[in-house]
Amino acid sequence: MTSTRAVEAPYLIFLGDAQNDIAAKTGAGIAQWRPGHCIGQHRLPACKVDIGLPEMMIAEAVAAGARTFVIGVVNAGGILPDTWLPAIAEALEQGLDVASGMHMRLADNPGLAALAERHGRRLIDLRVPEGPFTTGSGDKRAGKRLLTVGTDCAVGKKYTALALVDGMRARGMNATFRATGQTGILIDGTGIPMDAVKSDFVAGAAEALSPENHPDHWDVVEGQGSLLHPSYAGVTLGLLHGSQPDRFVVCHEPTRTTMLGVNTPIAAIEDIIRLTTELGALTNPAIRCVGISVNTMQLPENEARALLDALSARHGLPATDPVRFGVAPILEELTR
Amino acid sequence: MTSTRAVEAPYLIFLGDAQNDIAAKTGAGIAQWRPGHCIGQHRLPACKVDIGLPEMMIAEAVAAGARTFVIGVVNAGGILPDTWLPAIAEALEQGLDVASGMHMRLADNPGLAALAERHGRRLIDLRVPEGPFTTGSGDKRAGKRLLTVGTDCAVGKKYTALALVDGMRARGMNATFRATGQTGILIDGTGIPMDAVKSDFVAGAAEALSPENHPDHWDVVEGQGSLLHPSYAGVTLGLLHGSQPDRFVVCHEPTRTTMLGVNTPIAAIEDIIRLTTELGALTNPAIRCVGISVNTMQLPENEARALLDALSARHGLPATDPVRFGVAPILEELTR
Repeated sequence: MTSTRAVEAPYLIFLGDAQNDIAAKTGAGIAQWRPGHCIGQHRLPACKVDIGLPEMMIAEAVAAGARTFVIGVVNAGGILPDTWLPAIAEALEQGLDVASGMHMRLADNPGLAALAERHGRRLIDLRVPEGPFTTGSGDKRAGKRLLTVGTDCAVGKKYTALALVDGMRARGMNATFRATGQTGILIDGTGIPMDAVKSDFVAGAAEALSPENHPDHWDVVEGQGSLLHPSYAGVTLGLLHGSQPDRFVVCHEPTRTTMLGVNTPIAAIEDIIRLTTELGALTNPAIRCVGISVNTMQLPENEARALLDALSARHGLPATDPVRFGVAPILEELTR
Repeated sequence: MTSTRAVEAPYLIFLGDAQNDIAAKTGAGIAQWRPGHCIGQHRLPACKVDIGLPEMMIAEAVAAGARTFVIGVVNAGGILPDTWLPAIAEALEQGLDVASGMHMRLADNPGLAALAERHGRRLIDLRVPEGPFTTGSGDKRAGKRLLTVGTDCAVGKKYTALALVDGMRARGMNATFRATGQTGILIDGTGIPMDAVKSDFVAGAAEALSPENHPDHWDVVEGQGSLLHPSYAGVTLGLLHGSQPDRFVVCHEPTRTTMLGVNTPIAAIEDIIRLTTELGALTNPAIRCVGISVNTMQLPENEARALLDALSARHGLPATDPVRFGVAPILEELTR
């Protein structure tokens, strides 16, 4: 997708006054998946997190070639705290664009907006979809697509998609990551925040995100929500129909009992496979599951391996933890 | 739902320069379903449509008690044509609010916005959701709910819901119509345009639209799209999860072969019943289909009756055309 607001690398990652890893997970995700894009980290004195990048003053980062000051931290409520403003202002004054995935827009802060204009820099609010989008056509387009889906939100759909793209490229395949959430967009520099698209246009936006391509090219689309999550299933379904995936991978977190933010029990892997296959067939009858991706971080290695073996046997599909054990089993099934 | 922008009756319905019934279908819908709210119609000289209301000048309607000038006409592209501006301006000057369901907002016209402010009148753009909404909770709430669903868009979901509410009230039941599209909102004076809600909040908006209520009260929610429409299924699913209907009615148009705006074949009634029941069970395990509503307008009466009998026998459910033959069979199944 061509985007007029693609975030330009290299980045200086701003961690603000992050008190824990969860607050800094956007910054950590960028550092993990796009280390070559990250020139350094910039922290306020109260910050308690270190994502392992060189510590830099803003002027230093600019001298080293940084182009964008990326807000790699969230605070409760997604608002822009006053304590961050001096650093953001300094970044603009020193010639950096500023990119954010927060709900509160940088551009809605009159002081920052004026400063950005005066210095000819961009305030890039990635939570705001670019659009305009059309409604989905449902028509099949050339190129291959893989979508990561899940038994819940926040079970590793983005990490799985990123790991698959790295693995596919390592095998010489032509593959592109397609980001659908603000962290994925910051990691990749472009994408569409599906949760902020007007509901009528979600399928159309997903079509625009993974346009017609060479027959052997793979778009690996970051999934959102879950078909069985009562808050977000509509987003998941629109994304499924618009992405029209040929193949999908189910992502799962084995220690969770209820879905994120609600009292609904976590979905069963077999239900997600069955529903995704049935509903996805509307725009791509060839849709097929090629693997199960499990976030086993909470389990000791022997338990993790036993669980993966059991899931693989039960569903007749490869099962792996992409971060811990790699994506080779899924890629073998994909290219079989 | 409490709304600060509810459209106040009585209405003067503006038909602009409508050339055909389709262009004036919003006005006609209001006149059909809320005749008591309509004080008259106002037409430009080029108008070729008559919806059967008394013809009125704006000043006459104001003298007769009108409160709102309702744009009851759409033109290609949903934009506000210059030819309508003098009438809208006069309505504001004479003391009427102006309500519109068009994509183009009245409030974005600087001349109208200034005029409305000067005269202390409201420009009510019903296509803009009020919000802010929260994400859906999935929690069951008191009160009963019925949702109309469909094998396609524009198959009579709104008319069926309105007819059911009239029929339920005639039987002494406590029932409320809940509008989810701009025409329904104009007919009822309130509601939420689901197609314009950000995708993350569709289920939450549907929860807000049909809040907790008395155990014997029915919310009859106007459905949107179809679970098997490749453009809009996500909207349909979010609305289903948030409405958490106890009962649903499937709406169908028997002469259609492909879905509106796409090349996808029209969905089968049995597939819609099965999918709605399975997916709706996530937020209401008691969900059950209580009837099939068929728009038989294109068929002679004997064919219409034969089709309804055949559908009823095939699905083991009452089948009727609410406009042509009434809703009694569905209400009998509902109250059985």
